[in-house]
Amino acid sequence: MKGNCLVAQSGGPSSAINASLCGVYQEMVKSADVGTVYGGINGIQGIMEEKLLELPPILNQGEHIRILAQTPASSLGSCRFKLKSPEEKPEEYARIFEVFDKYQIRYFIYIGGNDSMDTVYRLNEYAKSTGRPMQIMGVPKTIDNDLVGTDHTPGFGSCAKYIATTVQEAAQDNMVYDMDSVFVVEAMGRDAGWIALSTALARDREGNPQCDLIYTPETPFSTEKFLADLSAIREKKRFQVVVVSEGVKDANGVYLSDTGETDAFGHKMLRGAGAVVAEMIRKNLGIKVRDSELSILQRCAVHCSSATDLLESEELGKQAARGALEGVSGRMSSITRLSDEPYRIEYGFVDVCDVANAVKTVPDDYFNEARNHASEKGLRYLRPLITGTKDRIEENGLPVFLNLAAIYHRSNSF
Amino acid sequence: MKGNCLVAQSGGPSSAINASLCGVYQEMVKSADVGTVYGGINGIQGIMEEKLLELPPILNQGEHIRILAQTPASSLGSCRFKLKSPEEKPEEYARIFEVFDKYQIRYFIYIGGNDSMDTVYRLNEYAKSTGRPMQIMGVPKTIDNDLVGTDHTPGFGSCAKYIATTVQEAAQDNMVYDMDSVFVVEAMGRDAGWIALSTALARDREGNPQCDLIYTPETPFSTEKFLADLSAIREKKRFQVVVVSEGVKDANGVYLSDTGETDAFGHKMLRGAGAVVAEMIRKNLGIKVRDSELSILQRCAVHCSSATDLLESEELGKQAARGALEGVSGRMSSITRLSDEPYRIEYGFVDVCDVANAVKTVPDDYFNEARNHASEKGLRYLRPLITGTKDRIEENGLPVFLNLAAIYHRSNSF
Repeated sequence: MKGNCLVAQSGGPSSAINASLCGVYQEMVKSADVGTVYGGINGIQGIMEEKLLELPPILNQGEHIRILAQTPASSLGSCRFKLKSPEEKPEEYARIFEVFDKYQIRYFIYIGGNDSMDTVYRLNEYAKSTGRPMQIMGVPKTIDNDLVGTDHTPGFGSCAKYIATTVQEAAQDNMVYDMDSVFVVEAMGRDAGWIALSTALARDREGNPQCDLIYTPETPFSTEKFLADLSAIREKKRFQVVVVSEGVKDANGVYLSDTGETDAFGHKMLRGAGAVVAEMIRKNLGIKVRDSELSILQRCAVHCSSATDLLESEELGKQAARGALEGVSGRMSSITRLSDEPYRIEYGFVDVCDVANAVKTVPDDYFNEARNHASEKGLRYLRPLITGTKDRIEENGLPVFLNLAAIYHRSNSF
Repeated sequence: MKGNCLVAQSGGPSSAINASLCGVYQEMVKSADVGTVYGGINGIQGIMEEKLLELPPILNQGEHIRILAQTPASSLGSCRFKLKSPEEKPEEYARIFEVFDKYQIRYFIYIGGNDSMDTVYRLNEYAKSTGRPMQIMGVPKTIDNDLVGTDHTPGFGSCAKYIATTVQEAAQDNMVYDMDSVFVVEAMGRDAGWIALSTALARDREGNPQCDLIYTPETPFSTEKFLADLSAIREKKRFQVVVVSEGVKDANGVYLSDTGETDAFGHKMLRGAGAVVAEMIRKNLGIKVRDSELSILQRCAVHCSSATDLLESEELGKQAARGALEGVSGRMSSITRLSDEPYRIEYGFVDVCDVANAVKTVPDDYFNEARNHASEKGLRYLRPLITGTKDRIEENGLPVFLNLAAIYHRSNSF
């Protein structure tokens, strides 16, 4: 049955989320069953405000599709809106489906993380209960790699490649002077340590790790153990790199970043976990320490993205679109790994209700015994995800981006 | 007259300093006048400790030269050692020339910034006064771009490309949600605002700046003016990126942030100007702010280096080597710009005594009238420096590096 397609993005952005959008678009726009393809601006929240952009007039122009695929962060804009149940908020469902009806949306594809899969689940259930012939599908996305039901998530590989490259480079810088020196990097990851763990990939040509110690939320952090770990490394080498997940907690579940300090006005002083660890080293060992908080850069550094990640992200978009066109609904496209080396995967689907609101932390056996680095099994899992570098379109030495939300706002303002 | 060559690196590292080393090496190793080429480990400080590494056995292997050229940070190691006068420290001069004599050094090439050019000047004067037939030359290097006597410095273009790319990407991330948001980036630059100013290059496809406000040490910082600047921008757009040099000071010359620590040269160690500005916005405007301190990453992010910069860095190394072989001494290789567009330069020499200890700040007319962004003249100067992307050798998805200091230490330990 002919109808239109609506695709939107939700949750934290990534370097690969627009590659998935390109995948959805390319598959949908060529189908005889699809009238047109709309992009929803700022996710489900913008859809309720009827912020829809017709994509073919923009994406069928020149190199726009290729430029979109190399644009970091949600080009359609995003939201952090969590849908309540239809019993709690009937008016939200009424509004969403009013917009769907008005634009004759038959296929709704939502690209996002576990909260977004909850939205897909709820909308799909509601569509079924109201007898609407719709296909509502999810495409996974999160740099955090913490979604269940898929071997890994789009955006993670690029984030891992960027942060491992950064550690590889910073390790060189950290050892230039004839003096002991530690460099501390704070990695994103509130509940899971995947990003921090990926810095275990950084190696010199002899295979020695360039990141010496890695601390993640999976293991309670102990200052005593950390200082002992660092001292043990210092007996063997003078220059260390330490990586800490932002979400590292102590044995009582207190975040490391929660220093308990207050400023002159009594306001809680918030510092990054990395800064706290740097201060710990300075105080206890009196050696030179530098730290860096990459902040959002690790999720938008598309200039250092993994070609494997971008390709898979696009394929997962296509997979969800093909599923929808074949009548599948309420599912998320996903990856199953068949082998690490050679790296082989297959694309499939999982029920969104299995993905929604769940978190996949790093398995125990991906850590070494001391739980401050990756095990060989962990490395085998991580290695294929960061391979390949994609050529990019540059102008005047800088990458070129396509921001669909900005185009929407320009054409709809004043 | 036949003799050996010694090349060493000094001061803060950069992405391009090893390209200069490759240039020196390639020119020297092919000359019939040169016996062998040594690398001095950890600059003049390591030379006094007789830490010399014979380079041909390493650099003539396979792709080692190409790998060295793509290695960030001083591969030979660096130092922050400032030579006193021969009257003050005669033993240091005696020791350095004892090592020079022992290794039959006829050509000494020192790659570094203004402090390093002071070393070149002093050693050259001493060599002359003692009647030694030596050629002692400098090759410019600093991400800060604050050396006089050369249009720009090796390492700056790559740093500028990295930070402008980062701003270009972060601006995309900063605008994904339907809420006002500011992203603050702290750029290196104690005395000069070149690095911060280079973020003016980041543009969207319509030519709009992606960095809205830039504050550098050249202009006294006023909180009132900054908040007024930001409010004026906020009337026109919802998402802002602000860049601040680490060395920004107020009208009384007080650094925006000052830890009180000093380095070996007595320079104040600064950090946190970006964090201070972020806090200023949070307190006064109550909007969402994120900040990032790139720290050393901006000087070692060779994965995002400028091909123009790397090529020029290598050429400046070759230029200094060729000069030395032709009998020139006490000079630094340098760049004169002939035109901005098309970009044309020529290589030459300047007297190191003109370069030593001087600082070139950003000229007034490179700023806009409000002194919070670049002028068109500033942009014309900056544009050609970040062009081109160099292919790199990767293994397992990560760049491959060659650390000569590590090779020296492995072969000389225990």
